[in-house]
Amino acid sequence: MDEFDIERPADPDLGDPILIEGLPGVGHVGKLAAEHLLEEFESELVRQIYSEHFPPQVTVEDGRTQLACAEVYAITGAERDLLVLTGDHQAGDGPGHYRLAATFLDVAAAFDVERIYALGGVPTGELVDEPDVIGAATTDAFVEDLEATGVEFRENEPAGGIVGVSGLLLGLGERRGYEAACLMGETSGYLVDPKSARAILEIIEAAIGIGIGYDSLVERAEEMEEVVKRIRQMEQSGTPSEEDLRYIG
Amino acid sequence: MDEFDIERPADPDLGDPILIEGLPGVGHVGKLAAEHLLEEFESELVRQIYSEHFPPQVTVEDGRTQLACAEVYAITGAERDLLVLTGDHQAGDGPGHYRLAATFLDVAAAFDVERIYALGGVPTGELVDEPDVIGAATTDAFVEDLEATGVEFRENEPAGGIVGVSGLLLGLGERRGYEAACLMGETSGYLVDPKSARAILEIIEAAIGIGIGYDSLVERAEEMEEVVKRIRQMEQSGTPSEEDLRYIG
Amino acid sequence: MDEFDIERPADPDLGDPILIEGLPGVGHVGKLAAEHLLEEFESELVRQIYSEHFPPQVTVEDGRTQLACAEVYAITGAERDLLVLTGDHQAGDGPGHYRLAATFLDVAAAFDVERIYALGGVPTGELVDEPDVIGAATTDAFVEDLEATGVEFRENEPAGGIVGVSGLLLGLGERRGYEAACLMGETSGYLVDPKSARAILEIIEAAIGIGIGYDSLVERAEEMEEVVKRIRQMEQSGTPSEEDLRYIG
Amino acid sequence: MDEFDIERPADPDLGDPILIEGLPGVGHVGKLAAEHLLEEFESELVRQIYSEHFPPQVTVEDGRTQLACAEVYAITGAERDLLVLTGDHQAGDGPGHYRLAATFLDVAAAFDVERIYALGGVPTGELVDEPDVIGAATTDAFVEDLEATGVEFRENEPAGGIVGVSGLLLGLGERRGYEAACLMGETSGYLVDPKSARAILEIIEAAIGIGIGYDSLVERAEEMEEVVKRIRQMEQSGTPSEEDLRYIG
Repeated sequence: MDEFDIERPADPDLGDPILIEGLPGVGHVGKLAAEHLLEEFESELVRQIYSEHFPPQVTVEDGRTQLACAEVYAITGAERDLLVLTGDHQAGDGPGHYRLAATFLDVAAAFDVERIYALGGVPTGELVDEPDVIGAATTDAFVEDLEATGVEFRENEPAGGIVGVSGLLLGLGERRGYEAACLMGETSGYLVDPKSARAILEIIEAAIGIGIGYDSLVERAEEMEEVVKRIRQMEQSGTPSEEDLRYIG
Repeated sequence: MDEFDIERPADPDLGDPILIEGLPGVGHVGKLAAEHLLEEFESELVRQIYSEHFPPQVTVEDGRTQLACAEVYAITGAERDLLVLTGDHQAGDGPGHYRLAATFLDVAAAFDVERIYALGGVPTGELVDEPDVIGAATTDAFVEDLEATGVEFRENEPAGGIVGVSGLLLGLGERRGYEAACLMGETSGYLVDPKSARAILEIIEAAIGIGIGYDSLVERAEEMEEVVKRIRQMEQSGTPSEEDLRYIG
Repeated sequence: MDEFDIERPADPDLGDPILIEGLPGVGHVGKLAAEHLLEEFESELVRQIYSEHFPPQVTVEDGRTQLACAEVYAITGAERDLLVLTGDHQAGDGPGHYRLAATFLDVAAAFDVERIYALGGVPTGELVDEPDVIGAATTDAFVEDLEATGVEFRENEPAGGIVGVSGLLLGLGERRGYEAACLMGETSGYLVDPKSARAILEIIEAAIGIGIGYDSLVERAEEMEEVVKRIRQMEQSGTPSEEDLRYIG
Repeated sequence: MDEFDIERPADPDLGDPILIEGLPGVGHVGKLAAEHLLEEFESELVRQIYSEHFPPQVTVEDGRTQLACAEVYAITGAERDLLVLTGDHQAGDGPGHYRLAATFLDVAAAFDVERIYALGGVPTGELVDEPDVIGAATTDAFVEDLEATGVEFRENEPAGGIVGVSGLLLGLGERRGYEAACLMGETSGYLVDPKSARAILEIIEAAIGIGIGYDSLVERAEEMEEVVKRIRQMEQSGTPSEEDLRYIG
């Protein structure tokens, strides 16, 4: 295998698509949001990106193995054409992050992507009932566009900057001439957070003019409400059940 | 030395051999199983693979040093020709794991390997009297073959996927067109586990149609039973003897 | 992006400039000193150095993102022409430190830099009222020059040597024929320390014959005095306020 | 700077010299022994090896900086010509260890080195009054030679093998056709140990037929005896003085 090994299972013609990235991170917010898009819309796998910069492992599902990779799907049934980038891993080393992000931008270029949205969570340290969405972008114009949709831009937030592929899609993306933004849903940082994922997706709806259904996400959010309720009960009385632990990210 | 340095002490003609990998890991299950094959059958060293991706060290045995390496042996006296890959080390860095696994697959290709079995352990956190063997494979057909021999394929197990060379022999192997499976014996994770190694080897017997003797492994298992008994006594009364500690992996 | 990606927004003619480096480190002393020069004098951004050896992240300020980089500014309004190298990051890996320092020396060469000053702090473990400046240099002549300005050269100090870009600007700089010195202000190691930064800058004034105003640094130092006073009160009575914590480096 | 940067201040003709390596390690035993040779015999610096695989730092002595490097000295005034390899650092990364050791072997080849001795300590966990010297070597013949001089070769010792440059000088050295041995003096592992260094040097005397004076090492050993005495007193009564701490490696 080379440093990067890219499969191209399909090469559809897309009209100025928007690239939406949701890889694992705080509260799995970005990944939940990206996966929700793939559930709500019909999609086509267009790229699989393998790399020695991913952790050296395979995932197992029902006995079948899958080598660590990132995947890019095309969605053509929404009001805007979308490319959704998701996967189970970030890079395992610093230069690897840079090179992976650059490889993702190569894919964006091949599909003439217009704007890039990186999705993630920002940890608040406590349970959040109505998560705000914090933003960061590469241009003042993009900041203004997003402010109009309800995204909050706060002085010195997130304090530590944006780390990993999400940050580099903006940082390297800007250097290649892309307008890119990162949308970060507030989340406790302790739990998988579908509510925060929904908050981000509602911004996406307004920002790029598409409609998204939320039935499955509402269901997952209600499951999590149950978990949270039980955790609060446990805080008074005991230890978590194995079922609860499955949700703790 | 180059990134990889391969010695070829022999190059026997093998008939569609099976590659069996057992490097160090949980409970040393895979390595025990591979070494048991080398004890039970006559074998010939065919490859030694040195690499700067192995830890920078030599092992010492009776005063003689041996640079970190992996070794591949050919067994031609069984019902099927076998290549057994073993050694004392995994790679020390992420990309190194990918490159080592790729190098091992190059060796497999040179001998026209038909199928690949990666052997290891899966930690249960408690002492296991009758270890099951959990499986994962690259094709549905291989999954079915193994299910017929008693291998268990469980939803979302192992939960963290398969890490290291074993995982990549499947992940990268699949990309090169190999059918590959990982057999993981249940084991506590705290002790060297010959019983778990035997459970795997019994699957190998059924899966590839060879007969394996177990006298030496039974002996080691009985030694371990003694250790376990003493540990259980210690849990009630005291601290381990130095002799016992030798077995704790 | 290549391993290094250098922007050249301006290329002024400078007369035997002095390179002054202040990247993040103990007490942010070096960075504070470098930033103070950029506040006190008019400056022009001449180089931005991006690299995969920087941490994979963007900083965010008022919603706008900035990819990790180092920046070099030219100051022509002082008695001597200066190049000031600063930024928010050190390299993330060992070879990266060497390669970044070498890249900075390439920039120094492009501007015919005469001497190099690396600025930093040396931790004392306790609050220092009147910080001394400890020095280290590549030549005996430079050591003597600096001793005459009040820099202290102590046997075996700093005990651990000088680590990171500052150390390598001297180590690699010497190998390219540069005279280079490191000036390290004593500092507790626990707090951002403008007083220590001023002590260094006063040495710079004497060493290269320029005059520097200190109004803004005095202000920051007074703010810190307040913080220190409150910390001393807290040591008797309670926990720090959020505002205080902002200053703890 | 390239990956390796080698200075050649002198290139004397040596007659089948012995390479003796003593880099930092357990109890600084190897480094003490190598430095003692440089004190007892006149020597000439023949190589300085700089590398981005060394830690990114300079050491400081009396205000003068020195970039991390390894140094090779030639000794021609003893009964056998010697090359002594020493320095303040091991490599900072795994592949770096391999490449540094290979570079050192290139130097050995340039001087037609006959045999290689890597010196170090083996930790016992307790203070040792009369340290034995444990050995490991690349050939049975070399093992026998050393056994005759009093070196002990113990089954499975050192248990973890030999790590770092010392180990690789044997491991990679053997692959290039060198006879190489590692001599490890028993040492507590907590203190700089001149007595253990002497034990190794006495083996060297017998093994290669040279005479070594020990006055300065005896002095250092007596200093350490004092420190040990005080530590034993402290164990009963109090905390170490700053002076004592200087010796704790």
